[in-house]
Amino acid sequence: MVKKLEMLPAKDVDLSSVKYEHEVVKAPHLTGFVFRFFVRILELPLIGPAIMTHLKKDNKIDQLLRHTVIPEGPMFKPEYPPRETEPGVVVLDEDGSPASRVESALKCLPQYDPSKSWEDSSLPFRYWKIRDYAHAYRSGKVTPSMVAERIISVIEENCRIKPPAPLLISFAAAEVRKQAAASTQRFEAGNLPFDCIGNPLSILDGIFIAIKDDIDLYPHPSKGASTWMHEVRTVKEDAICVSRLRSCGVIFVGKANMHEFGMGTTGNNPNYGTTRNPHAPDRYTGGSSSGPAAIVASGICSAALGTDGGGSVRIPSSLCGVVGLKSNYGRTSMQGSLCDSGTVEIIGPIASSVEDIMLVYAAILGASPENRISLRPSPPCLPALSLDDSDILGSLRIGKYTAWFNDVHSTEVSDKCEDALNLLTKAHGCEIIEIVIPELHEMRTAHVVSIGSECLSSLNADCEDGKGVKSTYDTRTSMVLFRSFTAADYIAAQRIRRRIMHYHMEIFKKVDIIVTPTTGMTAPKIPPSALQSGETDMQTTAYLMRFIIAGNLLGLPAISVPVGYDKSGLPIGLQVIGRPWAEATILRIASAVERLCGESKKRPLQYHDVLRSN
Amino acid sequence: MVKKLEMLPAKDVDLSSVKYEHEVVKAPHLTGFVFRFFVRILELPLIGPAIMTHLKKDNKIDQLLRHTVIPEGPMFKPEYPPRETEPGVVVLDEDGSPASRVESALKCLPQYDPSKSWEDSSLPFRYWKIRDYAHAYRSGKVTPSMVAERIISVIEENCRIKPPAPLLISFAAAEVRKQAAASTQRFEAGNLPFDCIGNPLSILDGIFIAIKDDIDLYPHPSKGASTWMHEVRTVKEDAICVSRLRSCGVIFVGKANMHEFGMGTTGNNPNYGTTRNPHAPDRYTGGSSSGPAAIVASGICSAALGTDGGGSVRIPSSLCGVVGLKSNYGRTSMQGSLCDSGTVEIIGPIASSVEDIMLVYAAILGASPENRISLRPSPPCLPALSLDDSDILGSLRIGKYTAWFNDVHSTEVSDKCEDALNLLTKAHGCEIIEIVIPELHEMRTAHVVSIGSECLSSLNADCEDGKGVKSTYDTRTSMVLFRSFTAADYIAAQRIRRRIMHYHMEIFKKVDIIVTPTTGMTAPKIPPSALQSGETDMQTTAYLMRFIIAGNLLGLPAISVPVGYDKSGLPIGLQVIGRPWAEATILRIASAVERLCGESKKRPLQYHDVLRSN
Repeated sequence: MVKKLEMLPAKDVDLSSVKYEHEVVKAPHLTGFVFRFFVRILELPLIGPAIMTHLKKDNKIDQLLRHTVIPEGPMFKPEYPPRETEPGVVVLDEDGSPASRVESALKCLPQYDPSKSWEDSSLPFRYWKIRDYAHAYRSGKVTPSMVAERIISVIEENCRIKPPAPLLISFAAAEVRKQAAASTQRFEAGNLPFDCIGNPLSILDGIFIAIKDDIDLYPHPSKGASTWMHEVRTVKEDAICVSRLRSCGVIFVGKANMHEFGMGTTGNNPNYGTTRNPHAPDRYTGGSSSGPAAIVASGICSAALGTDGGGSVRIPSSLCGVVGLKSNYGRTSMQGSLCDSGTVEIIGPIASSVEDIMLVYAAILGASPENRISLRPSPPCLPALSLDDSDILGSLRIGKYTAWFNDVHSTEVSDKCEDALNLLTKAHGCEIIEIVIPELHEMRTAHVVSIGSECLSSLNADCEDGKGVKSTYDTRTSMVLFRSFTAADYIAAQRIRRRIMHYHMEIFKKVDIIVTPTTGMTAPKIPPSALQSGETDMQTTAYLMRFIIAGNLLGLPAISVPVGYDKSGLPIGLQVIGRPWAEATILRIASAVERLCGESKKRPLQYHDVLRSN
Repeated sequence: MVKKLEMLPAKDVDLSSVKYEHEVVKAPHLTGFVFRFFVRILELPLIGPAIMTHLKKDNKIDQLLRHTVIPEGPMFKPEYPPRETEPGVVVLDEDGSPASRVESALKCLPQYDPSKSWEDSSLPFRYWKIRDYAHAYRSGKVTPSMVAERIISVIEENCRIKPPAPLLISFAAAEVRKQAAASTQRFEAGNLPFDCIGNPLSILDGIFIAIKDDIDLYPHPSKGASTWMHEVRTVKEDAICVSRLRSCGVIFVGKANMHEFGMGTTGNNPNYGTTRNPHAPDRYTGGSSSGPAAIVASGICSAALGTDGGGSVRIPSSLCGVVGLKSNYGRTSMQGSLCDSGTVEIIGPIASSVEDIMLVYAAILGASPENRISLRPSPPCLPALSLDDSDILGSLRIGKYTAWFNDVHSTEVSDKCEDALNLLTKAHGCEIIEIVIPELHEMRTAHVVSIGSECLSSLNADCEDGKGVKSTYDTRTSMVLFRSFTAADYIAAQRIRRRIMHYHMEIFKKVDIIVTPTTGMTAPKIPPSALQSGETDMQTTAYLMRFIIAGNLLGLPAISVPVGYDKSGLPIGLQVIGRPWAEATILRIASAVERLCGESKKRPLQYHDVLRSN
């Protein structure tokens, strides 16, 4: 007999009495032999479930899911109240061609003269933008094929590192050359006057993009960084998002490395090798989109597509010093990705600047027919940065939950994020409003139950069919946890989802965005003993995931934008979380933050200038 | 290692090659001591789960949920394509007053002269309609208080039966008298001319209605027919549906008996006694809304509210020879009912005629604010039966899956339903179109996983807190099954829901309604050994639930209407299943069937004429 607890209805919870509770995670940090032994024990009948029950008890998981009366009904997918329009936005046509959306996005960007950056080599370090590539191609100074050769040579060099630390886990030089040649030909084909030559498909023509290994990029296999997924699932065509990019002339370099099946936040990968952080090769990139973030941060690709079901775009973007967008749930089609039936994942772009994020986002967006019925998304918008938006910026109310904001591994992280906010309020007069978010622990539990169960549901039949033991020990640990969730646990998690949604919608009556550090720590060191067979380190996971859950559990749009570096030179990211469907607002804020903090960009240790050969 | 199976995507399934598979249920029929012993074993650690695993294996449940790759993404709640308007309907105002909706409903009814029925006592047996009561009250021949006294005496008599077989499990004569006096006063208050006296709130003023024990009726407790629910959940006000009826002047007789927590289809109730079928006291009423169906069938109440999560309104309506409406999922608010957070249940009316169903349905309907956001229901409609609708009836295409239709316990059931269809086609020229519905077994599995898990999620904390052992053995058996479902099983069930929805939406491109027998058998005998501690009889359950699942898993509107009797004089019901939100169409068909088959109504053995004292 276990005494039940009762929650107050969310609408009756007195927010003024909520106290911040520091997250306490009780789980061992294991690597190497001990980890492998632990997993094998965990997978045994009887003793395994007993250990799992003990671990869950320590973390009060069953207490919440099985012994607490949660008055709310389940919310299985985000359900939003009717939405206000955002000011100063350009509406994009979901049903139009990706290239025409990219054209609209381009018009949203502020004035910029790429020829100056191109010619003045004394400028401090900054990443080349898509508009720089476009300028170089259109001015005839560089061809996509020239860039392709440089990228191929960098990737081939990357392949030779020992122990392996690949950016890409599926790569075919011939395939890249072929796409580049086609793009080059388009630029050479036409014969337009002035400094615009050729007949490119869009400003993305000839732009090099990497695709995370859990998104289909024909003819590459989609392994999700596992050793077996491609044996049971054949890639027959591009994912919808990829085909949209392809129609814009994008050149795909290959499939970027990741944490196996996205089930981890470091990017550790014993199957193919762990991608290293371009700012510190002894440190993790963060994950699960490790390869996408690193390939952008190291200058090789202008952008990459990642998936974000629990911070997998934002965490590595933050740790690698680049920008990562998690759009609203349902904003883009998940068709052709390994996680095409969850309630928390999206496909999102990673790029080195907010403007490049906007261009790629404009190309890939467009909800699936299913989600148009069930979610009825608000029309996708971009902020018109080309207009003077200082009035709009000045009117934005920024929500900050200070006790949470400051609950980080080192105060350097929160301090830098605080500095960025101060710059923002000084420059634009935005107001910072102190907020409180109750039940953060409950939100985390609801999220892990949701994503874990949905993931297990996708992998179950194959795992039971003999593939389970071919997964990494890290995945296997997660699977044991996920298998322990009952159907009633899953429904309890969805009841919590409704509560957390209620709290956020109440907060969004008072503020326009919520800001947090993206991660509670900068890039963690890779324990050498974790390279061979992975590790379990829930403390690090907790720091990395501390602030990212609302974006996934509630489907809210969120973006990570770099705001500086810690003493060791490791990047720090600020997260901006928006109202439902309000990508335009978070992009506007991110762009302002970038303008204010972006001056002192550090050149990563592993950086390659593939546009202007070095 | 278990070999996986792979399903074709639903859109690629060739319907012409689908073969009907008879439902095979492998489970023992247990009653009495053996049943009690079985449940105790089933609840033991290790051996209990082992038995459950074996039972589930026999019924291929885990094979479907864990070892089959289901290509569709989960559909957690019904998602419908955009809807065509139904012809010849009256739209009801969800936000208007219940009384004004009832007024609109009244205008939909065909011409009827109640004074004739009232005066001609030589007419063959028929139930009094709400319009008969209204006439009697308005003509001053009877008052609600007079009827109340007759009902109180019948109920008090019913309470004295040994062994107990109560229609109501919460009843307070004083409460009924008070409501009746207030209604009587309203009729006496005004002073209008002609045969209309008083100032009634609506045509439902003074109409006696019973409320199933899982719907709140203040000040009665809501026990869900259990011995403990009222100890952990206090009723503070009427359920929304009940308060809507109350605003129309309805007199509530009390809380009607039911299968504990709605977890059964017979109406067996060892806690308070099993309600007997008014047509055969040695037989079940069917369930779970046993009391509501029986109290209507025995003439005591004009209508009752039941809940239907797995046929619980339609099954007992069919077995007791009355009409039961399962409206579309989300059509009515579930607030104030024990199952207020599931994805399959509705609150629906039971009455002796389609017109009375329409009047009560008009009063109770109106989606909750939550469901207006997530489901965006089509406006509620009623068929304008007052107009000549023969054109509309003639144009309706009726879908029939003959192999399924005929898969019944005795061909008397399917023959009588077939006869009704023949009358319909002869009278109105409706076309019968042969259809095929694939994956009926999968549909059943998806349904039991859904309703079971959602139910467990509601009861879990209290059951673990010591109430579990106070539940009936029947409930406890179900709970052991429901506890065995994993979160991934639940999600797999939702994937199947999307498949089944696809098939039905394809079928509804070709037909307007689907017809089946409501149940695969007439009222089953009550084994005397099952009275004390219940029974488990999955074969009977399978016959009773054979045809009802689509209404719940897909949320489709469905109605059961009596079409005749078997050789033993037991009622047989025809089920009409409609397109999403198309209650008007199924009501129209049900009304036509009633006109054609209703001539030879049998007076139930247990019948009480409470309007015209006998």
